[in-house]
Amino acid sequence: MNALGTHLLLDLKDCDKEVLNNLNFLQDSLLAAASEAGATVLGESFHHFHPQGVSGVVIIAESHLFIHTWPEHGYAAVDIFTCGDSTQPKKAARFLIEKLQAEGHSLMELQRGIQAISSIAPAARGIEHGHRP
Amino acid sequence: MNALGTHLLLDLKDCDKEVLNNLNFLQDSLLAAASEAGATVLGESFHHFHPQGVSGVVIIAESHLFIHTWPEHGYAAVDIFTCGDSTQPKKAARFLIEKLQAEGHSLMELQRGIQAISSIAPAARGIEHGHRP
Repeated sequence: MNALGTHLLLDLKDCDKEVLNNLNFLQDSLLAAASEAGATVLGESFHHFHPQGVSGVVIIAESHLFIHTWPEHGYAAVDIFTCGDSTQPKKAARFLIEKLQAEGHSLMELQRGIQAISSIAPAARGIEHGHRP
Repeated sequence: MNALGTHLLLDLKDCDKEVLNNLNFLQDSLLAAASEAGATVLGESFHHFHPQGVSGVVIIAESHLFIHTWPEHGYAAVDIFTCGDSTQPKKAARFLIEKLQAEGHSLMELQRGIQAISSIAPAARGIEHGHRP
């Protein structure tokens, strides 16, 4: 399979609620995650919602990182989409699991834009569940 | 199942190559798609790559729309992530399938941040394949 993009869907559970509501912390974390992956940052945009919650994107030359947080549920949805072979998106995922102090997580890897097969549906490579010891 | 977010993964195949390389057209299309879905636009950011390809995000109060295009493959990866019940993300997907003149597509719907079940992995609700008559 020859995919154009690797799409990691990271769900973080039982995170610290204060962390999930801290825009500056999340912005720094997502930028640092992009750096961990070896990506080139092109831009960023973060929004704080009332009464709580943050949405943020870091646009990278290799695609994007996104986060949406629900502090009231201790939950964050993260997407890490990269194209090409120059980045290590799983390093970004591991970094964010630690940084946001997630007690549990799931990490699903999808291949987007698969060539040379008739289906163009995203193909799941695998899903991982993790819990803090 | 009570999900916090609905995540549509839309893969567009055999699109018009000129369309996929036209930043202004794609920007207008993604903004119009957000409007079709009934979403509230908070911001946007688009980048054109050399020699070709466009990445763009529209941040909405209900989460985000993203597009990455590979004109050389006639392919675009689109994400439509919404939370709450006030939007109709599938309307945005249908709009983009038409607007980008995709000959084929796949549309996968994932539920993110599912509460009240032990797993936090994204759950697929279904996948649809379509071709132009």
